[in-house]
Amino acid sequence: MPTAVAGPEIERLIQLLARLPGLGPRSARRAALHLIKKRDLLMAPLAAALQSAMEKIAICRICGNLDTQNPCAVCSDPRRDPSIIIVVADVADLWALERAHAVDARYHVLGGTLSPLDGVGPEDLSIEALITRAHAPEVKEVILALNATVDGQTTAHYITDLLAGAGVKATGLAHGVPVGGELDYLDEGTLTAAIRSRTPF
Amino acid sequence: MPTAVAGPEIERLIQLLARLPGLGPRSARRAALHLIKKRDLLMAPLAAALQSAMEKIAICRICGNLDTQNPCAVCSDPRRDPSIIIVVADVADLWALERAHAVDARYHVLGGTLSPLDGVGPEDLSIEALITRAHAPEVKEVILALNATVDGQTTAHYITDLLAGAGVKATGLAHGVPVGGELDYLDEGTLTAAIRSRTPF
Repeated sequence: MPTAVAGPEIERLIQLLARLPGLGPRSARRAALHLIKKRDLLMAPLAAALQSAMEKIAICRICGNLDTQNPCAVCSDPRRDPSIIIVVADVADLWALERAHAVDARYHVLGGTLSPLDGVGPEDLSIEALITRAHAPEVKEVILALNATVDGQTTAHYITDLLAGAGVKATGLAHGVPVGGELDYLDEGTLTAAIRSRTPF
Repeated sequence: MPTAVAGPEIERLIQLLARLPGLGPRSARRAALHLIKKRDLLMAPLAAALQSAMEKIAICRICGNLDTQNPCAVCSDPRRDPSIIIVVADVADLWALERAHAVDARYHVLGGTLSPLDGVGPEDLSIEALITRAHAPEVKEVILALNATVDGQTTAHYITDLLAGAGVKATGLAHGVPVGGELDYLDEGTLTAAIRSRTPF
């Protein structure tokens, strides 16, 4: 869009929206127009929500979660099992596990996975803090809930080695057929893993 | 996401982002996380851009375009041909024509098209203002650049009838093969129109 048509304010809004994941230049234009048309119903609340999020959201000093309290609501919750730490690469993975109500334990957000090709080494992730937490007497198990990719599994093995002296059990997520999944669409690695780890009915 | 995980601020941000066209609940979560992680590089500028857009952007009192000046930059531009008014349904269409540098004329934004099923009648659109503008002595032609849909064409015919006494020529966009288009993928209506309106090489 030439700047002359709608002025630099709209142009700037479109450019910023286009940097959100899932929005390209075209959908950013549509989103900007939608926002401008719904000034009171959407644009004003969104501006306020962004401002409020900026002021209040912090990184939990214990686990790396994002929350408006520090330590975060998960770390502060006394009903959570303190004997299990679930290690995730990203806050999005923590949210996914919480949505699934998978387990009432504590988390540890690494901030990524080891990736030599991208220049991500152990010092770039929150691994040292995890090892320190795992040495606490109440911790009995560390669940490495990392992606089933090469980088994810490399990171899991690296952390398992470091946990050797901490007196905790290191576990990983089970491989198998996704619930609702159709065998026909699954890759051979998943099918082999599902057969190997077959369970009695 | 349960509210307890990340606090109501993040939850609210996700809900608002999910109301943008092109973002669903899942991509809104990703977008919110991306914003929170890029607080200084993206979240702060976006909050400021929204605030600035809210304060400055107005609807042009002549043509209905959105701009930071009123009348808008297009209406205020003395180099634009005042004899032609291009009628569009929406500001997005105006932007599209401007991006194409299709014509250096003035615009008129209707704010939609007639749609009896959706309860959109002539009084809901900026039709009266258009007829008044068309009666100005300098206006010679009104180009009805409306969608080639039933609603768009119904609106074009309705406006053409109203323009009968204004002494202007009412024209529509040509139908034909899109530039770069392949005949094999075009519908029969378009092909028939392209044959009927064939042009000499």
